[in-house]
Amino acid sequence: MIAEILCIGTEILIGDIVNTNATYISKRLSEYGFDVLYHSVCGDNKVRLEETLKHAFKRADLVVTTGGLGPTYDDITTELCAKALGLGLHKDENVEKQLYSYFEKTGRKMTENNLKQAMVPDTSTVLMNDFGTAPGIAVEKDGKVLVMLPGPPREMKPMLENQVIPYLSKYTDHVLVSSNVNIIGMGESSVEEKLYDLMTKSKNPTLAPYVNEGEVRVRVTARGKNEVEARKLISKTVEEVKTVLGRVVYDVDSPSVEHSLVKLLSEKKKTIATCESCTGGLVSASITAVPGSSEVFGFGVCTYANEAKMRLVGVKADTLEKYGAVSEQTAMEMAEGVRKLSGADIALSLTGIAGPGGSSDEKPVGLVYLGVSVGDKLYAKRMLLGQHATRDREYIRKLAVKNALMTAIDEVMEL
Amino acid sequence: MIAEILCIGTEILIGDIVNTNATYISKRLSEYGFDVLYHSVCGDNKVRLEETLKHAFKRADLVVTTGGLGPTYDDITTELCAKALGLGLHKDENVEKQLYSYFEKTGRKMTENNLKQAMVPDTSTVLMNDFGTAPGIAVEKDGKVLVMLPGPPREMKPMLENQVIPYLSKYTDHVLVSSNVNIIGMGESSVEEKLYDLMTKSKNPTLAPYVNEGEVRVRVTARGKNEVEARKLISKTVEEVKTVLGRVVYDVDSPSVEHSLVKLLSEKKKTIATCESCTGGLVSASITAVPGSSEVFGFGVCTYANEAKMRLVGVKADTLEKYGAVSEQTAMEMAEGVRKLSGADIALSLTGIAGPGGSSDEKPVGLVYLGVSVGDKLYAKRMLLGQHATRDREYIRKLAVKNALMTAIDEVMEL
Repeated sequence: MIAEILCIGTEILIGDIVNTNATYISKRLSEYGFDVLYHSVCGDNKVRLEETLKHAFKRADLVVTTGGLGPTYDDITTELCAKALGLGLHKDENVEKQLYSYFEKTGRKMTENNLKQAMVPDTSTVLMNDFGTAPGIAVEKDGKVLVMLPGPPREMKPMLENQVIPYLSKYTDHVLVSSNVNIIGMGESSVEEKLYDLMTKSKNPTLAPYVNEGEVRVRVTARGKNEVEARKLISKTVEEVKTVLGRVVYDVDSPSVEHSLVKLLSEKKKTIATCESCTGGLVSASITAVPGSSEVFGFGVCTYANEAKMRLVGVKADTLEKYGAVSEQTAMEMAEGVRKLSGADIALSLTGIAGPGGSSDEKPVGLVYLGVSVGDKLYAKRMLLGQHATRDREYIRKLAVKNALMTAIDEVMEL
Repeated sequence: MIAEILCIGTEILIGDIVNTNATYISKRLSEYGFDVLYHSVCGDNKVRLEETLKHAFKRADLVVTTGGLGPTYDDITTELCAKALGLGLHKDENVEKQLYSYFEKTGRKMTENNLKQAMVPDTSTVLMNDFGTAPGIAVEKDGKVLVMLPGPPREMKPMLENQVIPYLSKYTDHVLVSSNVNIIGMGESSVEEKLYDLMTKSKNPTLAPYVNEGEVRVRVTARGKNEVEARKLISKTVEEVKTVLGRVVYDVDSPSVEHSLVKLLSEKKKTIATCESCTGGLVSASITAVPGSSEVFGFGVCTYANEAKMRLVGVKADTLEKYGAVSEQTAMEMAEGVRKLSGADIALSLTGIAGPGGSSDEKPVGLVYLGVSVGDKLYAKRMLLGQHATRDREYIRKLAVKNALMTAIDEVMEL
């Protein structure tokens, strides 16, 4: 079934907002086997919207619109869509009731225009909006399916997930679901080598190793009659992948590196501490972004000045004098210092040159040392980051954080 | 002149990437007075691309395409665009030369397909690509203007800025440029009141107070024959705004709150320290994101555990026992403690409940105390954040950071 996504909104056309709705809807529709062949954006203009809708219905069987469902005079989507499909409009009592109750609750005055939102096309299915006042619409006529969704993503997404996808399931006979197996300490080619037999043998699900922002993953994609069936197939294959790859699998469908790290530390009842210079608190901020991280994290320091390195975690003046703040030696003393200070099982430190200033002949922008203190081990990893990119300060900091968290996962898996 | 932006690429249609090119180009074209009335996305399919181009040229005078300029068999944009405009193709020698040199330099083998990229429409202006192999194209025929740009943003943007905008200047007689005046400590309505006379009097530039993510700004927009002329008009009006509003203006075109804070501290030769609990290092990470922040920042601590609050910054066990970690008293001791520890001129502390867990009847999710120690002052601000949103942990942390940095700006302006 050919689909077109038509987003209505002048703010998109003048470049004020990025059209993330089209991306989100496309991804989900594609997973359900719809052929998304066109995206369009049109402004809140009656003539142009009417033409765009007409053109959409000519070339697509499923048209999903977002926006233009508000109460102001330029919200004309419902009216024009009904016209395009040759349908009349009528007032939906449930929507009207919800509108009255919303205005009562928020103490705002309802206008004639607001009542417009209660008008829906004949024969349509009304999709109640749990996060706003405009209902969504789903309707079919003469083989054409139309779904109208509110523009704001926080209203559109739940409606799509909870009501539209179930509604559309009658037009599709399969769904594609993917899971990502998270790998550490093995390159993409080696993973592909080890999984060769499984990949060749398995037609559904399919297995695809790939790299995303420096991380190796194996995407396992299953096709099933519905999501439950697809996920059953995936689970089985994911277990096979874990058996073949062994220890290099550190998580499945990890929401983020820090999430996986906190989960591992929690499972092993271990704690972590951080001492950051160039990353300024990004590592501790990442760890604490994970709910429940207080179980595994309690102490973080940002020793941005040399004075702080000495006073907070005991880096020796001598070391700073001899090797400099950005050195293997300083990184190790920072890690050891914060480990002693906190009593944590593992401690990370980061000291480097994020740029654009601060470099020298021997120490270029992107040079970052990662110090690690864990068990009996104390070492520092020398990294040269962002060399092939535009040497962006934020990018270098981001890479340093990623490296630190991945290294921590690697170490914690051994604990 | 009516413009349509047509982005070519199947990866956009399946939801793999967000269409940021359309947003960027729209914004720039709108600033130059073009009426961007349509966005379209089409896949790398000959038939559909041909139809989409035909339709675009019917309804728009300027069509800007991105993508489909690569060397593979599905890169057909140039061929189809030439056809749509009734133009032949010829080989451009400069492009061919650049292609050969690129392949020589990178030691890669050039194929027949690569040479395809040297074919350009007759009468067109070739836009050399400094960041890739595919040249851009600009051509006019029978009142229709076509601009073809490469898909990757890092190739598209410089080409748009350095070559396309100058090329298009013959079709436009003006440009719109905006500046934002950054306000602190005054609400939107009061700003509007104070600026009433200036707003009524000034037709070019126009003045528009507005709120963006809790910050009040005044957008000053000027229309000029070119950018230089527009900026002259803006400067003059911005000075008038500063005169009328006085102290509440803390910056103009601030890249970020932290940027403005570091700039202010630097100008006044003052330093800042941070002691964070719930925000986990986000404040120190923000401050250190600004190049040159080492002049004004040296010490940050993340006292996530009560043990750390006591041991690192001297919060009294008694205080924690009596009032709890999330309290006015603890916030003040944290701020005072890190101020003493660092010797900074101003210190901030944050302790709160980011959620989803950790709340109680008296202390709900979103309760955050901001402690401030500056000069002779020591106080804590009680905030209830994210109450009207979905109480998202990251959102609450983000709001806490924003509040802390804005409060610091307010205090530092008094130093």
